[in-house]
Amino acid sequence: MRVLIWNEYRHEQHNEKVANIYPEGIHRALQSFLETDDISVETATLDEPDHGITEERLVNTDVMLWWGHMAHHEVEDHIVEKVHQRVLEGMGLIVLHSGHFSKIFQKLMGTSCDLKWREADEKERMWVVDPTHPIVEGIGEYIEIEKEEMYGEHFDIPAPDELVLVSWFEGGEVFRSGCTYKLGHGKIFYFRPGHESYPTYYHEGVQRVIKNAVRWAQPVQRDISTYGNAKAIEEIKPKG
Amino acid sequence: MRVLIWNEYRHEQHNEKVANIYPEGIHRALQSFLETDDISVETATLDEPDHGITEERLVNTDVMLWWGHMAHHEVEDHIVEKVHQRVLEGMGLIVLHSGHFSKIFQKLMGTSCDLKWREADEKERMWVVDPTHPIVEGIGEYIEIEKEEMYGEHFDIPAPDELVLVSWFEGGEVFRSGCTYKLGHGKIFYFRPGHESYPTYYHEGVQRVIKNAVRWAQPVQRDISTYGNAKAIEEIKPKG
Amino acid sequence: MRVLIWNEYRHEQHNEKVANIYPEGIHRALQSFLETDDISVETATLDEPDHGITEERLVNTDVMLWWGHMAHHEVEDHIVEKVHQRVLEGMGLIVLHSGHFSKIFQKLMGTSCDLKWREADEKERMWVVDPTHPIVEGIGEYIEIEKEEMYGEHFDIPAPDELVLVSWFEGGEVFRSGCTYKLGHGKIFYFRPGHESYPTYYHEGVQRVIKNAVRWAQPVQRDISTYGNAKAIEEIKPKG
Amino acid sequence: MRVLIWNEYRHEQHNEKVANIYPEGIHRALQSFLETDDISVETATLDEPDHGITEERLVNTDVMLWWGHMAHHEVEDHIVEKVHQRVLEGMGLIVLHSGHFSKIFQKLMGTSCDLKWREADEKERMWVVDPTHPIVEGIGEYIEIEKEEMYGEHFDIPAPDELVLVSWFEGGEVFRSGCTYKLGHGKIFYFRPGHESYPTYYHEGVQRVIKNAVRWAQPVQRDISTYGNAKAIEEIKPKG
Repeated sequence: MRVLIWNEYRHEQHNEKVANIYPEGIHRALQSFLETDDISVETATLDEPDHGITEERLVNTDVMLWWGHMAHHEVEDHIVEKVHQRVLEGMGLIVLHSGHFSKIFQKLMGTSCDLKWREADEKERMWVVDPTHPIVEGIGEYIEIEKEEMYGEHFDIPAPDELVLVSWFEGGEVFRSGCTYKLGHGKIFYFRPGHESYPTYYHEGVQRVIKNAVRWAQPVQRDISTYGNAKAIEEIKPKG
Repeated sequence: MRVLIWNEYRHEQHNEKVANIYPEGIHRALQSFLETDDISVETATLDEPDHGITEERLVNTDVMLWWGHMAHHEVEDHIVEKVHQRVLEGMGLIVLHSGHFSKIFQKLMGTSCDLKWREADEKERMWVVDPTHPIVEGIGEYIEIEKEEMYGEHFDIPAPDELVLVSWFEGGEVFRSGCTYKLGHGKIFYFRPGHESYPTYYHEGVQRVIKNAVRWAQPVQRDISTYGNAKAIEEIKPKG
Repeated sequence: MRVLIWNEYRHEQHNEKVANIYPEGIHRALQSFLETDDISVETATLDEPDHGITEERLVNTDVMLWWGHMAHHEVEDHIVEKVHQRVLEGMGLIVLHSGHFSKIFQKLMGTSCDLKWREADEKERMWVVDPTHPIVEGIGEYIEIEKEEMYGEHFDIPAPDELVLVSWFEGGEVFRSGCTYKLGHGKIFYFRPGHESYPTYYHEGVQRVIKNAVRWAQPVQRDISTYGNAKAIEEIKPKG
Repeated sequence: MRVLIWNEYRHEQHNEKVANIYPEGIHRALQSFLETDDISVETATLDEPDHGITEERLVNTDVMLWWGHMAHHEVEDHIVEKVHQRVLEGMGLIVLHSGHFSKIFQKLMGTSCDLKWREADEKERMWVVDPTHPIVEGIGEYIEIEKEEMYGEHFDIPAPDELVLVSWFEGGEVFRSGCTYKLGHGKIFYFRPGHESYPTYYHEGVQRVIKNAVRWAQPVQRDISTYGNAKAIEEIKPKG
């Protein structure tokens, strides 16, 4: 299984507080817990040529992770187009936190993906509302994060195919924090936590959800559907 | 209630067979059965300035119908953008038949919206699979159409929020023919039948479904949600 | 439109605190805001013969409301059977608060309908997560209730067809508080608030949701589907 | 992984035609293709004590398959209760063909589970409508069965969580043939084909779907949720 982690990688280079938390970048933090015997992980960042997302890499990726925040508009449209195409062909996509406003997520959702937000060192408690889902294997009744950015409803997304996690926030809001979608031949998981100024991706529960999601999102082995003009399978009677 | 019917209106002007069926255009055929005491209907077509879709008209439209086929690419992106925005603000949208490949439907769905098709004077039988839905009020167990174009699965759309009708085709295919979606503050209904070379929009059952759909799709009266930075409602405890 | 409100009506007769809030019973409080020119409302309670749910009444009911709590087990199975049958035939059903544990709701859901609970004069804030839904017409971004019983996840129900409202509770939990289902030919709405020891059903927002839900749940006018042995519509070829 | 196949096992013993197709019973035919290095399979039949479904066996079953037809009413209610309980605790359940009318399926669905049917040596073509689903891994665009019993809509089930397969029938009907549900902590898959008088369970495509479904339905490893009275996690302010 081949995973590609895409990270904007700007905060970590320009903001000391963030650099202290993720000295090698959020992508490296994610890579360090995703890499296992049967999962190989590569990374790509905004400032690489083609944002590190070459045709060849895409074709060889089973599941992609996406973290972006302040530079969504710098991601080039033709690259977004290619990632979109790969998702429709079957590549899994895990969109993290502020990636809700990325071009690729908006393009897949068809909505604004807007929400309420607040940075206030706030407690978050993500409750499992779908206990049957492989994405919450090994997770207790909830995941508690001591300090996070708040995201609040209304979250302008299509009703998820499956709602797995719902967040409670100290300041009074709720949020659909773990949402699955199936688009084309690909599976998508949106996972809320991970503001750059908190050590969220070191949290064991958060890591477990991401690890589970990567396995859940891998493509099913079958031929892509055929489209277009189709011969009749059964005889069609001539009509008057 | 104010309805706006958008029609590409090309086949009817350039193809004699189609002109014989819809001499004043598909939009006029739709208008004639939609207009009632409490529903006012306007029409717009591709070759009008701004495709007949002015800002003012859009703001005053509760539900829009969309029929297009051979000239999807001629619909200008900034107009699509405006229609998209209005759907997210609450305008209902009924996408008919070959409108599956329109820019607006693709943008809302996030997928290719591709499918199988065949023009072969084929019998179609649309079965009601959700008998609770207001869209099938007054409809029997199925709607039979003597001759139609075939559309077959896989239909590359997100799993509909509600699947209302499923078509059987003489040539051996099935199709999800009546699909609802909710995106932003707007409701969308995709309805399959209506190939230009058949008199489908004179079919009583087809008309009833479209009439029902228009009522179902009207906007709910409430303020649009607010987004962005939000003050805490509850007190947040200072943390270490 | 004919509405039947069913209420256990025990707390109000045996508990002074509750009697002070709902002196004529919860059913009368519900009736007083539901009755309008085009909606006629009757009530029924546990201790009437057949719990007030006669065959004739059921046949003439479009939408039924159900409030029960301490005496779910006293509701006779053959009455539950009849209500269940009527829902499958198209009658709408609004299940309120502790009705989550009623026999009829469990029978319709197929699950335990269990949940977490706590009586602690707790603040509840129900957030709208589906702004397109007619059930939240006229409702702002949330409904706040100063003091309520807490219900917390995991709520053991099937994933709702539509999730409309999600509650935040002061004590740290979340809950899927407004859930729609379609079963057979009937529509069901579960609505969380309404503990007997709080004046919740006098809350304007709560009343509005219930009023909207009653309209949403009314049966669609069409014949009930036919089942059983069916003649072929198309010719079936003899096989070897 | 431990699988338990339950079969009514009456047709095979009393009907020569069926006995010729499944001489050792449908359960043995299913067992023969399900058993692998990492899946151990046991079988149980109606006429065994407790229908072969002992407490101990249930506790040790990860996924159960259910085939029944003429003797649904002979399955004892207390056994149905136990199977139901185990599904809510996490056991997967694959309900096959005429099992749609079994007590356990009706209890889980909350509806009548009724449908149209016809025995007429009819061609069936099951189309994949969800190409992302692990249940159709290795399956082409459709599965064709030369001769089967027809099942037709309306199928009186709750809208499935996921609709995976839709059948076309020669005689003019369609049917939702592959449906997933999640109830309690368990996953359910209803799979239409498998009338006793046809060799359907020897069909490679049908076998592949059942094999995939068994893997998909296995329980997620996490503690069962806790229910009932819950202590506050956060401080609740005293109110007036």
